[in-house]
Order: sequence, then structure tokens, then C-alpha cells
Amino acid sequence: MGANLVIAGAGTADGTLVDIVITGSTIDAIVPAGDAPASPERIEAAGHLVAPSFVEGHIHLDKTLLGLPFIPHIPGDTVAERIAAEKQLRRTVGLSVEERGGRLIEQIAAFGTGSIRSHVDIDTEVGLGGLHALLALRERYADLVDIQIVAFPQSGIMADPGTADLLDAALSEGANLIGGLDPAGIDRDVTGHLDTVFALAAKHGAGVDIHLHDPGPLGAFELRQIAERTIANGLEGKVAVSHAFALGAIDDFEFGRTTDLLARARVAIMTNGPGPVSMPPVKRLAVAGVTVFAGSDNIRDAWAPYGNGDLLQRAMIIGYRQGFLADEDLAHAFAMVTTIPAGVLGLKTYGLAAGNRADLILLPSPSIPEAVASVPIDRTVLKNGRVVATGGSLTPR
Amino acid sequence: MGANLVIAGAGTADGTLVDIVITGSTIDAIVPAGDAPASPERIEAAGHLVAPSFVEGHIHLDKTLLGLPFIPHIPGDTVAERIAAEKQLRRTVGLSVEERGGRLIEQIAAFGTGSIRSHVDIDTEVGLGGLHALLALRERYADLVDIQIVAFPQSGIMADPGTADLLDAALSEGANLIGGLDPAGIDRDVTGHLDTVFALAAKHGAGVDIHLHDPGPLGAFELRQIAERTIANGLEGKVAVSHAFALGAIDDFEFGRTTDLLARARVAIMTNGPGPVSMPPVKRLAVAGVTVFAGSDNIRDAWAPYGNGDLLQRAMIIGYRQGFLADEDLAHAFAMVTTIPAGVLGLKTYGLAAGNRADLILLPSPSIPEAVASVPIDRTVLKNGRVVATGGSLTPR
Repeated sequence: MGANLVIAGAGTADGTLVDIVITGSTIDAIVPAGDAPASPERIEAAGHLVAPSFVEGHIHLDKTLLGLPFIPHIPGDTVAERIAAEKQLRRTVGLSVEERGGRLIEQIAAFGTGSIRSHVDIDTEVGLGGLHALLALRERYADLVDIQIVAFPQSGIMADPGTADLLDAALSEGANLIGGLDPAGIDRDVTGHLDTVFALAAKHGAGVDIHLHDPGPLGAFELRQIAERTIANGLEGKVAVSHAFALGAIDDFEFGRTTDLLARARVAIMTNGPGPVSMPPVKRLAVAGVTVFAGSDNIRDAWAPYGNGDLLQRAMIIGYRQGFLADEDLAHAFAMVTTIPAGVLGLKTYGLAAGNRADLILLPSPSIPEAVASVPIDRTVLKNGRVVATGGSLTPR
Repeated sequence: MGANLVIAGAGTADGTLVDIVITGSTIDAIVPAGDAPASPERIEAAGHLVAPSFVEGHIHLDKTLLGLPFIPHIPGDTVAERIAAEKQLRRTVGLSVEERGGRLIEQIAAFGTGSIRSHVDIDTEVGLGGLHALLALRERYADLVDIQIVAFPQSGIMADPGTADLLDAALSEGANLIGGLDPAGIDRDVTGHLDTVFALAAKHGAGVDIHLHDPGPLGAFELRQIAERTIANGLEGKVAVSHAFALGAIDDFEFGRTTDLLARARVAIMTNGPGPVSMPPVKRLAVAGVTVFAGSDNIRDAWAPYGNGDLLQRAMIIGYRQGFLADEDLAHAFAMVTTIPAGVLGLKTYGLAAGNRADLILLPSPSIPEAVASVPIDRTVLKNGRVVATGGSLTPR
């Protein structure tokens, strides 16, 4: 079958100009600029940078308040207080999860995100309602994004009896991974929480992605507990810990013994480049053999009014927070929203190579470091070989 | 004289809708929406938020590399190494300070900045060259921005003999304030450095704005030295310290005795919401009676590849770094790029009130907190009663 789309004269990471030949939803060939055959559709890239689509490593599609008037933040200093405030708010908002989550998907797809991992709250109040909404969104927006779902016990497991059975049901009904939350800080039972999480992972053959805000040496202890269970269950490469603020606030001894285990267990760390709290040190972790990927986390929800889901801006924020200045470091920040999360999510046909899916972005920057530093908005986004967004807006579906 | 421009139906901070009547370059009256008289020109604000223009508290017009191809960052971990790297680069760039600085002024004016404080390097290599370029820029762009110039000894004073005389000359030739830089870290002579700076301030009746990166208790000691000299010279309310990372990394005793003196001396603190280093705690400083204002600092220059000069994005970054979530805190972040720096810079006719200059922005957000959280780009900018930018781009001058 002949090519149906050619992206002509696109810039690549190494500075060469290429033509990208697309057949159906697949990259058929990448050839030197000018060498592509004629094709019914043609995009003149004019030297704009081409890259594989952004991969969102951590988002909460069910939490966003997009589509509603701006709701002032309800105060609450501890994680527990915020959980209570969110539940209160959730009972009163006038738009469904499907409406709010759908709006967020459309927004992030327009920025160039093609694949996402979304957590969804599972608790004894909402039950599997959020999961069912996300399963419907996954179906409805299959032409824009691929969605991986984490069954997330936002209210704890032991702290909210009945949640373990709901998590079990969620994994049976289509959730892809089992989540967790602050085994010490919320459930006050590190062993009980993690035993439950890993038993569910083993039962369903599911990966694991645990929210961990617990600070300093306490959080580091929990990271080691997670790594040990990962190895014991043969889950190396299938477990992630999100946030892990502790890694940015422990001494060298704690850091060394914790990262040794994380690296051995191939546990990946997700960061959103947090503002006021300690952040996992990305380059130091890379040297220690620990993978760090990025996610947007909260986007205008009960947890924070910030965020727009633009992963290029997220790469900038992470680079800024980490003091990334050199080109190679800026490129690493870009990898944290592209190739690195693609690996963590296990995307099989991701990347700028023949045979892979034509999930691509064109950025009006001559290089990846410049794109990260300047965060241009005018982008062309392709999903499955079809142009889905230009200039920051979705094209008609 | 009759109104020549009416902004009709603009939203204000308290949620009311108003008409703004402008005569020449002045706000003539602010009346309830619908009450404005007819006028030759009329802008339908349609509920968009109106606010006084952004005030840039700290920028380096002479340093930016805008207009040049992206230049990879030259490594250098210490302030001294970076100073050397910048000097090296400065000798080779192909565009003049006037060309690069002019491009930056146009960019920030399009974002809605109407007044700025710019530092300019004064050293024995560049002499007063940078100052002369900034004086020319101040003239050339008087219809877009008002510029206050700080004579800044980027290479130190004692460390670069001859600089003190150049600073003296700079203040005679049009610089408005005397700067300084890490009396301990760069000049290794706290007394000598500060005595020179304050003697020049006294001689010229100039204000002071000192860069201080020195960390922890060392930086806190220098802050107290600055506050004591401020009081001794009767300069209360005319001295600022930029960065002051130390205030984010000292114990309660050091913090208390340092802020007591800063508050008494009315020394203001400038922050850009730094990424990898400690940040002055904005709300804690406010409680202690210390004013904190914001600035962009480096914008794509030898110090950092980041930054675009958008002070609304800067307010977001500062709020994000400080964990500002509540509406009143987001509004405080907005004040840090508007009314607070206007006070520090001593702008006489600033603000949304009859009789003040019509330096205004219209933002497509229903409220200030939402504007800070979402950073919309589509803005209308007025300088001296004239529309100078719409949709993020300058109108033809």
C-alpha cells in the first residue's frame, strides 16, 4: 500500500532534515529530506522539529474541574485534610467525570500528548463510578489518546475498609495497574497496605504505581519496602512510585541504600517537578541507575489550581527546578515526557522509527533544547497518522 | 477635554464590571459599566479582567541573547565561573546590546509589562557601553515601557579595580540606582563592598539594589549589614536586595533577627521564584513586615536558557514554588508583579484609579486568581492610553 501522508523537511534531534512517510497509522519510512515519494497528503514542516508524541506519566482524569467556573481552593494542609475536602467538593460539582475528563483529554491532545497513564479514585463512596467513566472516555477518545488506568485508593485501603475488594473488582473490570497511597501516612500500616497492593498485582498480573508523599527517612523506608516486594514478586520493571519527595530530602547513606534497591528492582520514579516540596534529584538518580519519568499530576482540581497538561511546559518546569541548563540536560527533560515514560508505560510501537505508530508532534523550534527552554505553543499533532491538532487547537474530529 | 477612549464592561478584582474612561494618557474616570460617555474609540472588554500593567522588578536588558540562534549553555557551577563564561560569550555575539535588548523590550511589552527595572553590567571591560545602550533603548521605547536603570558591578567592585569610578560615572550619566553583588562571595570584603555602594548612593541621592546569592547564615549576615547601612544613611524604603536565597535556608533565630532589621530598614526583597535553590518564603516575610516583589531575571542569556519575560507566568511560577493555592495567595502572587513592584520602583501614577496613567492590561479571565493559575496569552495591553499589543503581539507603532 502506498504512502498517504508525507511530512516533508522536518528537523530531528541530531539536526538533520528528513521526510517522514506515513501509511495508514504507521511510519513507513524516514528518508533524507527530498527523497519521499509523492503522496496524496503532504505537510511542509519547513525545518520544524519532529518528535514522537508526548507521553503523560501521571494524570487524574477524574479529578479535574475543567469545564466548571474556577472554584477557589478549599484549604487543607495535610494529605488527609485534602482528601476530605475533595470528597466534599466531588458531591456538589455539576459536571460528570466524563464531561470534565473529556475536556481535559481534548486539551492535552491539542498540546501533543498521545498516550497517558491516568489514576482513578477507588473508594467506598465513589465505588467503581470513576473507573466506569474512564473506561467510557478511553473508548470515546481512542482516536486522540491511549489511556492506561491505575486503580487508585485515594482514601487509603485499611483506612477505608471495603476498598481492597473494590480495587480487586476494578482490576477485573479493565483497570491496568494497581495503585497505592502513603502506606505510613494514610493507612498507618506499611506492611498491610503493601501486602494488599502486591497481592492484587500478583492475582491480576498487573503493574503497580504507588503515590508516595511520606517525607525523608520514612518515605525512603517505604521505597525500600516497595523495592523488596517488587523483587520478591518478580515484578522488576513493572512498578513505579509517584512523587517520592523523600528522595530529595535524605542523607547520602539513606539515598545510597534506597537507590541501590530501587535500581535492582527497576522501580521507576514519577515526578511533576513539585513547587514547594523536595524533589527527587533526577540526574543523581540516573547515575544511581534509577529511571525518573514525568507527569502533570493535578490540573485545576481540588488539589491545586495550577496546571494545563502541556508536557512541554512540564519538561521546562522540571528542568528549571533541577537547574538543567546544558543542552544535554534540557534534552533529558524532553526525554522525561517522551521516550522515558513510553518505556515505563510499555508502549510497544513508540518512537521516531520506521514501523512505529505515527504518533508525532511538530514543534516550531530548531532543536529539542530550545523547545524545552522556550515552550512554543504552535504545534502540529498527529495521532495514528492523522493530524488531530494544529496551533494548539484540535482539528474537527 | 473629552474622553478619547472607553474600555467598556471590564471586570475588576472585586468582580464588579466597570467602564474606564481615558483621556490622553490618563485614566479620567472609572464608572459602573454602561455609564461611560460616548467616545471616538471604544474597546468592548466583554467582562475581561482589567488590571494595571505588569511591573518588571528585575531584568537584564543587556544580557539577553534574543535575536541570535539558540546558544548552548556554557557550564560553570559558581557565580565566578559564570561571570567569566558570560564575558567570553559577550565578546563574540554578533548582535549589539541595543538590538538584543530592543527585542526583549518588544517581547515583554507584548506580554503587558509597562515599567521595568533593568540592571546593566558595569565592569572595566565593557565600561559604560551597556549603560549607553540602555539609555538609548529607554529613549527609543519610551512609548512602550518606562525603564529604571541599576548600575550593576557584575564582576565585583574590589575584585575588578576601577569599577567604583565607573559606577560613579554611570550614576552621573543617567543610571538611577547603584547595584551590588555578593560582597562576601565575589568581592570577599563585605565592609569594603557595602561602604562603596552606600557612599555612591549617598553621593548621588540614588536608591540601591544589590544581587545577593550568598547562602544561609552568610547571606543573612550580609542582609543585616545592608539593613544597618540603609538606616544609617536614611535610605529606608529605597533599598532592595535581589534573590536573597539565604532567607529560605536559615533557622528561626537567624530569620527573626534578620527580618526584624529588614523590616525596620524597609529593605525590599526581589525573587524570581528560583528553581533549584532556596527561595525567600514570601508569606512568612510578609508577616514579618518585609516586602517581596518579583522579577524575571535572566531571559535566554549566558546564565540560563529559560524565561520569556511574561510576568503573569512568573507570578504562576512564584505561586507554584511557594505552594500558593488559595485565592488570596494567588492574588498576592499577582500583586508581586503589579502593585508591589510599582511601590518599590516608586511609580507615582500607577494603578487602577482616576488620575493615574492609563497603563493597563485586559486578561481573558474572570478573576485574578484564575488568571495566575491559567496564564492566558491573549491580552490587550495599553501604554499611556494607547493600545500597544493584542493577542500577544505588538500593534504597529
